[in-house]
Amino acid sequence: MIERIAHIGIAVRSIDEARRLYESLGLTVEAIEEVPAEGVRVALIPCGESAIELLEPTSEDSPVARFLERRGPGIHHLCLGSDDVMSDDASLRGAGIRVLREEPTRGAGGSRVQFVHPKSAGGVLLELSQAAADGDE
Amino acid sequence: MIERIAHIGIAVRSIDEARRLYESLGLTVEAIEEVPAEGVRVALIPCGESAIELLEPTSEDSPVARFLERRGPGIHHLCLGSDDVMSDDASLRGAGIRVLREEPTRGAGGSRVQFVHPKSAGGVLLELSQAAADGDE
Repeated sequence: MIERIAHIGIAVRSIDEARRLYESLGLTVEAIEEVPAEGVRVALIPCGESAIELLEPTSEDSPVARFLERRGPGIHHLCLGSDDVMSDDASLRGAGIRVLREEPTRGAGGSRVQFVHPKSAGGVLLELSQAAADGDE
Repeated sequence: MIERIAHIGIAVRSIDEARRLYESLGLTVEAIEEVPAEGVRVALIPCGESAIELLEPTSEDSPVARFLERRGPGIHHLCLGSDDVMSDDASLRGAGIRVLREEPTRGAGGSRVQFVHPKSAGGVLLELSQAAADGDE
C-alpha cells in the first residue's frame, strides 16, 4: 500500500545554489551524500513526512547529467513510500503497467525499490520505495 | 513555515488514462473538479498528508495545454503547504528570489497562494499554499 510521498527528486546543476531557495523558506539540508554508483550528490531536505532531494551530477554520463542536458534543471522523479513493494510490483504487472526492473531491488540501507516506466506513468519517472524492516539488510 | 508537500501537479492528456496507474497502486481519485479560469480539469488523489493532482487541459490555450505541447506529459509543479504565505513571501523577496505575483493571492476556498519564478527555483514551478483559516473566505 502507498502510504505517502517519500520524496521528490529535483535535478540541479549546483546544490550550493539550489539550496538557497529552500533555506529561505526555513527548510534545512539535513545531509549531503555522494552516490558514486549513480554519479550524483544528493542533498536531503526533510519536509513533513516527505523530503525534497536535490540531485547534482558528479559525472557527465550519469542519468542526472543526461536529464540536465536534455531538459534542463527541474523535477526529475517522484518517489512514493509503500509498505509492500513486492505486492505493488505484482499489482502493476497484473494491470499491464511496465516496470523498469525484473523485480524490486535493494536500495540504500536495505530498502526495496522498483520504478514504473515513464511510458506507463504519463511521462513521470515514478519510484516506489519501502523502508527496510528492522534487522533487514 | 513550510509544513509539508501539499501536492504534486502532473500534466496529463487524459485523466481517464492516467488514473489507472495510481488506482493500480491502491490510491483513490477523491474528486474531479473543473477549473474553467485555468482551463483544466483536476483529479485529486490523496497520498498521506499530500496529494497527487492530475491536470488535464480543457482548452488549447491553457497553461497546462502549452506545457504538454512544449514538454509532453509529466510533473508540472510542486506545491508546498505553509502556515504563513505572507511571511514566506517576505523572506523570499528579502533573499532576492523572484515571485510571480505582486502579493499572495486568494486561491480555492480562501487559501492564500504565491509562486516562485522557475528561474529562481532551478526550473521548478514552485507554489506555496496556505489553507484558509476557519471563518476566512
